[in-house]
Amino acid sequence: MSDFFKDIPAIKYEGPDSDNDFAFRHYNPDEVVMGKPLKDHLRFAAAYWHSFAWPGGDPFGGQTFERPWFGDTMALAKLKADVAFEMFQILGVPYYCFHDADVRPEGNSFEENTKALREIVDYFEEKQAATGVKLLWGTANLFSNRRFMSGAATNPDPDVFAFSAATVKTCMDATKQLGGENYVLWGGREGYETLLNTDLSRERAHAGRFLQMVVDYKHKIGFDGAILIEPKPQEPTKHQYDYDVATVYGFLKEFGLEGEVKVNVEQGHAILAGHSFEHELAMARALGIFGSIDMNRNDYQSGWDTDQFPNNVPEMAMAYYEVLRAGGFTTGGTNFDAKLRRQSLDAEDLILAHVGGMDACAAGLKAAAKMLEDGKLEAARDARYAGWDTDTAKAMLTSDLDSITDRVMAEGINPEPRSGRQERLENLVNRYM
Amino acid sequence: MSDFFKDIPAIKYEGPDSDNDFAFRHYNPDEVVMGKPLKDHLRFAAAYWHSFAWPGGDPFGGQTFERPWFGDTMALAKLKADVAFEMFQILGVPYYCFHDADVRPEGNSFEENTKALREIVDYFEEKQAATGVKLLWGTANLFSNRRFMSGAATNPDPDVFAFSAATVKTCMDATKQLGGENYVLWGGREGYETLLNTDLSRERAHAGRFLQMVVDYKHKIGFDGAILIEPKPQEPTKHQYDYDVATVYGFLKEFGLEGEVKVNVEQGHAILAGHSFEHELAMARALGIFGSIDMNRNDYQSGWDTDQFPNNVPEMAMAYYEVLRAGGFTTGGTNFDAKLRRQSLDAEDLILAHVGGMDACAAGLKAAAKMLEDGKLEAARDARYAGWDTDTAKAMLTSDLDSITDRVMAEGINPEPRSGRQERLENLVNRYM
Amino acid sequence: MSDFFKDIPAIKYEGPDSDNDFAFRHYNPDEVVMGKPLKDHLRFAAAYWHSFAWPGGDPFGGQTFERPWFGDTMALAKLKADVAFEMFQILGVPYYCFHDADVRPEGNSFEENTKALREIVDYFEEKQAATGVKLLWGTANLFSNRRFMSGAATNPDPDVFAFSAATVKTCMDATKQLGGENYVLWGGREGYETLLNTDLSRERAHAGRFLQMVVDYKHKIGFDGAILIEPKPQEPTKHQYDYDVATVYGFLKEFGLEGEVKVNVEQGHAILAGHSFEHELAMARALGIFGSIDMNRNDYQSGWDTDQFPNNVPEMAMAYYEVLRAGGFTTGGTNFDAKLRRQSLDAEDLILAHVGGMDACAAGLKAAAKMLEDGKLEAARDARYAGWDTDTAKAMLTSDLDSITDRVMAEGINPEPRSGRQERLENLVNRYM
Amino acid sequence: MSDFFKDIPAIKYEGPDSDNDFAFRHYNPDEVVMGKPLKDHLRFAAAYWHSFAWPGGDPFGGQTFERPWFGDTMALAKLKADVAFEMFQILGVPYYCFHDADVRPEGNSFEENTKALREIVDYFEEKQAATGVKLLWGTANLFSNRRFMSGAATNPDPDVFAFSAATVKTCMDATKQLGGENYVLWGGREGYETLLNTDLSRERAHAGRFLQMVVDYKHKIGFDGAILIEPKPQEPTKHQYDYDVATVYGFLKEFGLEGEVKVNVEQGHAILAGHSFEHELAMARALGIFGSIDMNRNDYQSGWDTDQFPNNVPEMAMAYYEVLRAGGFTTGGTNFDAKLRRQSLDAEDLILAHVGGMDACAAGLKAAAKMLEDGKLEAARDARYAGWDTDTAKAMLTSDLDSITDRVMAEGINPEPRSGRQERLENLVNRYM
Repeated sequence: MSDFFKDIPAIKYEGPDSDNDFAFRHYNPDEVVMGKPLKDHLRFAAAYWHSFAWPGGDPFGGQTFERPWFGDTMALAKLKADVAFEMFQILGVPYYCFHDADVRPEGNSFEENTKALREIVDYFEEKQAATGVKLLWGTANLFSNRRFMSGAATNPDPDVFAFSAATVKTCMDATKQLGGENYVLWGGREGYETLLNTDLSRERAHAGRFLQMVVDYKHKIGFDGAILIEPKPQEPTKHQYDYDVATVYGFLKEFGLEGEVKVNVEQGHAILAGHSFEHELAMARALGIFGSIDMNRNDYQSGWDTDQFPNNVPEMAMAYYEVLRAGGFTTGGTNFDAKLRRQSLDAEDLILAHVGGMDACAAGLKAAAKMLEDGKLEAARDARYAGWDTDTAKAMLTSDLDSITDRVMAEGINPEPRSGRQERLENLVNRYM
Repeated sequence: MSDFFKDIPAIKYEGPDSDNDFAFRHYNPDEVVMGKPLKDHLRFAAAYWHSFAWPGGDPFGGQTFERPWFGDTMALAKLKADVAFEMFQILGVPYYCFHDADVRPEGNSFEENTKALREIVDYFEEKQAATGVKLLWGTANLFSNRRFMSGAATNPDPDVFAFSAATVKTCMDATKQLGGENYVLWGGREGYETLLNTDLSRERAHAGRFLQMVVDYKHKIGFDGAILIEPKPQEPTKHQYDYDVATVYGFLKEFGLEGEVKVNVEQGHAILAGHSFEHELAMARALGIFGSIDMNRNDYQSGWDTDQFPNNVPEMAMAYYEVLRAGGFTTGGTNFDAKLRRQSLDAEDLILAHVGGMDACAAGLKAAAKMLEDGKLEAARDARYAGWDTDTAKAMLTSDLDSITDRVMAEGINPEPRSGRQERLENLVNRYM
Repeated sequence: MSDFFKDIPAIKYEGPDSDNDFAFRHYNPDEVVMGKPLKDHLRFAAAYWHSFAWPGGDPFGGQTFERPWFGDTMALAKLKADVAFEMFQILGVPYYCFHDADVRPEGNSFEENTKALREIVDYFEEKQAATGVKLLWGTANLFSNRRFMSGAATNPDPDVFAFSAATVKTCMDATKQLGGENYVLWGGREGYETLLNTDLSRERAHAGRFLQMVVDYKHKIGFDGAILIEPKPQEPTKHQYDYDVATVYGFLKEFGLEGEVKVNVEQGHAILAGHSFEHELAMARALGIFGSIDMNRNDYQSGWDTDQFPNNVPEMAMAYYEVLRAGGFTTGGTNFDAKLRRQSLDAEDLILAHVGGMDACAAGLKAAAKMLEDGKLEAARDARYAGWDTDTAKAMLTSDLDSITDRVMAEGINPEPRSGRQERLENLVNRYM
Repeated sequence: MSDFFKDIPAIKYEGPDSDNDFAFRHYNPDEVVMGKPLKDHLRFAAAYWHSFAWPGGDPFGGQTFERPWFGDTMALAKLKADVAFEMFQILGVPYYCFHDADVRPEGNSFEENTKALREIVDYFEEKQAATGVKLLWGTANLFSNRRFMSGAATNPDPDVFAFSAATVKTCMDATKQLGGENYVLWGGREGYETLLNTDLSRERAHAGRFLQMVVDYKHKIGFDGAILIEPKPQEPTKHQYDYDVATVYGFLKEFGLEGEVKVNVEQGHAILAGHSFEHELAMARALGIFGSIDMNRNDYQSGWDTDQFPNNVPEMAMAYYEVLRAGGFTTGGTNFDAKLRRQSLDAEDLILAHVGGMDACAAGLKAAAKMLEDGKLEAARDARYAGWDTDTAKAMLTSDLDSITDRVMAEGINPEPRSGRQERLENLVNRYM
């Protein structure tokens, strides 16, 4: 046991009236909701990068966090892993997620990186066995090192494509070894800074081919998790090819991958793309590509990725409502892709940020479940579309403009609008919060 | 001849040194650029709605324009047409565009609307013959009347779908009769105000089916123009299904229409979707669905559709650069989907706004042509990707992760980044302005 | 009694478990919180314009509402008043607010407008006496009529300044006659569309002088309510001079009015200015100019003024927390500057929208009161600044750079950062929701 | 002579037809415009931080630039200075600007920092003498070191206020020693991340007192340059107290400093605050606090500070038009607060970025001068307000609401709107580009 979290107890459920900072008020892991324990609904995961690899810098200032594991040696990487698994246990999160670059020292070559990754993956394997904590997903960091500055799969230099492909292979191998339930691709540098130096067609073709290779490799090695793309509109690049859920869908269709790849939807990325989180989730559901979520919160007045811990329960309820309508998570889960504010220096802050986020998720999910179980909202929505269940309407959909026109003329169809009742439904939703 | 534009002469090209407000400085219609007269490159069209149907209101104020043709009778509709064609001739624009609701009085039924539309279309036919002005595209207004408040093809009420389908049929008929070169669909109400009362899957399915019917009808009547969708992210709705070019592409793929339908890209809509205009054009080109453009300008500090006349030549040059790279317009053209500021009350303002816009377009297109003819930008871009023309790189694209990894390991591939030279290319571009 | 709201009962408090749409769950007017009944904390007002004068149009569509009082006669204006006061009573709101143009027919001259306003004000006076409903504030609509298209006080035409000044006088007279507790100025057209035709210095000087005249007139007639400016950054203009609270403060200082004029802060305007609502309220408090609030909600993904009924309780709690920290309302109150969605056609929608908004306000205020009564947040904030309560720190503030530098050097001051504990405080806040 | 820029010649003016990348096309330093050489109009300065201290990182990736002077020793600091002054001479910029942290190694205490700063300032003094390059402004970096994470003057810890005050003293001393013409304060951390832990009143009071001390110290040491505040709305903080020009004005008024302090306006900060650059400049002129400019360009589709080199000449012309209307620069100048894209790795990129920016500034200023010399725009604007020059209008401004109302009634004033002619003026402006 390291002493980073010393004196911080394992977090327990104490109910809404507790005034213990180090307790859950809403997240009772074994509470059964809609026939399933909360922990199986929410499938919480902690993100290795924000909590253990990020030094607290921003574009105008450097490191604020001083962690005993910061540095670039294997010994420190293992200390970091020790502390990370301690946090997973204190919080009781069943899962974690990582990039290769989060967990191993950075080497001078692909070979060194691979060797270091393998060593730390073996170490993780032991720790998973010892703690019962599992891997929700693995991924490759193809954006931080300067070699990726102009893209990974979409780099003008084919050697970077090669390096990236090889790196993804090692990360997929690692994910499989650790029993990961998904493999995620976020293309932070797969986009452009300026169209002036960019061959858009070529870059998109390479991105598509790269993804096909990933899918092929998944089948080759028998990895039975899901392949997930994480949409984001921009930042760090001016434009990222995986802009939003609808864009990813078109991309998957173009490359014949819509049956193979799903999306990992992040709240903050939705906001940056001009959407609400629930929109992106509803769209993923409608398009049949819903996979998993990155839970965080983007400041509504900031134009960059703020990755804050979530805390607005009514908003989160609408997100989980869409998750539940999509059938809930299968391989996916709730990954806290959220980082401490850089002024939150203490070990306690790291624990409490997660406690608050988990509690807000639990409260949100329970509200969403109540909405669905009550059924009033579903009923109101269905009633609004009831006209489409008639034979006439169904027949119209298989007819053509001419015959519809004839009918409009013959019957003098002149529809009178009906209230959409938005405020009434908003009131209804607020009753479940 | 009406007297609305009395004393305003036909606009002539007088060259860059003219100080005549009522002259072109850059738009010399017959000037040959890249082997084609400017007028055939630009294919200018005036928009009936903004210039002749809009009363000058905004959400906080009513009508400011007082036009002799305002009112809801057939006689006034014909006066409006007279003035409109006078403007087309004064400006020398070869094309115009219209919605049904712009040109005919609003009736009390589909039958009345259809009858009125037919009468005005006959009138247009005569005026086209008399003036040589042609129709770039027609379209149906499925958003202003209260019957469309909850959508047209995506309305919860199937009768509105029927009414919309019949209306589109009549507008396609009108477009064909007038020799229109395109038929456009802008789904201003095809989206939602709140997910709470919206069945996203059902609405999208109806939208897709509707579009299939439009394509079928095009073939049935032998309309040989293009069918174009005009993307917009939102406004008036919170979310519009045709969010941006990439979203429309996915939608077309979903409904098997990617070979049948193209896009009409608007500057202002691009900006509202978080993109530059040239991005949307480049994306349309890359996806093979570039059709036409709506030229205007959105204020960069306003979050709604400002539809201003364009005037920033360097930006417009980048747009026409993408148009030219896409092969230039075939059926498409440059439609001024731009409206006077509501304080610009005078007939002269209407003429001068177009004169300025046409001149800026001409200046932009000529700069773009110079860029392409000079070839330095293309050469620099091609050089950046030259590595991909090697046999090794091509072979890699048809291989797999395993063999790439083996090669990375064997050859110790460790790519060194190369400058993207963005500022140098920006300087180069500025030389052509 | 008109029959517009027939069968809709007066809304009563039934407690959180009620499933009656037409009941309050949180707003119990007489419930005492922090020593004062809720109704005296919240001081609810309904807005005449959105609920009774707005036809449901938006920039892409016309009227959707069909109200029996629509039209431009005095008889209809009185019918409108009858229905409005019925709504006030059904809801139990103690206050209302209006612009002159909302309540009277539009005349052809200042004289006609004044005469009509006086007649309707007399009618209001009777209705106030009969119902006990009071006027929170009156204001003049200096933005809808085309004469104001280029500004009211800031119009390039001095006759418009004159017309505006005279109109404000009549509206201040009306407000005084009706016992209004505030008089509000929102300068929707006091700004510019383009700097090219704008004399910024002259316009600001005229705006300042106009406001001084308003203050002088207030004293002259012995109006003892507050004069309030309502900041908004833009829309309808590109730039509005009363951009946000801090801008208004500078403007008041420039014209010597900071002791005479306060602000009416609107949620939606705060959002459009790039601020949170609580920021604008906190800033008004810090600057000593907090007056009243316009409660609504702006869609976070829309760049225009959406004026929706509010429903996010945690956000509203933070707003009322700032109101309570500012000492609560004195002359001010909670005005619902919120409009139905244009698809919400029914009389029931109008009632329910307000019911939901009032309930959310009550829930928010009660949460805010709990936060303050518990005191943990205040204590944590005070503790963070405790160093400033020392004599050394106080002395430093009255010293100078030289002596501070000497001390830093002499004492080797090298401050170590301390955690800002943001997430811990966010968790704390969530306990009160 | 270092060899960083070897083979790069001093940049000369070669005129618009040159196709030499390393030449000016528009910036002829000695060309006389409006009676003054271009170099005296533009007063170009290079920014030490972006060009020599920034390693090329962004929130998702690390260092891309590899500069021989990177490192934290005095020897490297001097090598950096050597290269910097070489660049100033290659470009022919007469000025530079710096923060203390850009130019000296970071020490472990205030004493070490001060000692290092003094040594490098002496070195700069020699280099200035040798090259003729001068200091436009100096400033203190009170935002990068972790001690400033919660603010400098506004830090909850008074020791940080002390450390900041002492640091500013040393930087003002350095600026005076080097003959700097201005001293700038940018309060990157003077704001908040969350209101929950922030005492807004206290922090603003401390910021005001701090600024008073700066002004006092200026007078004490006889520094005759200007004190400038650089507004920015947010980033890195959620809210920065110096939001925009109007906010700074109110702040100066509050603390009695409006006659002592001016503003340094940055294009990118204007955009992030929801304004155009010319708006902020026009506002600074109107409020009498215009000082200097930071010239760069913010991507219109990115919500963070992109600090790109400027290249849109028509936009820059409107900025210099406001600068010229404000009387041009006195102590101020054009500082390129612009950084290379992080993919622009080469020494040549650094030179060419400045060359392009300087050329665009020169082209913009010349267009602005033509506009002013031609006078048509000024004349049109004056004509629009001509009514205010009448005796009646002047008398009205010194009267009151009552007497104005009497006159409106007596004369039946009923103003008819006149066209604002925006498009015509936009056309006019385009003629000068």
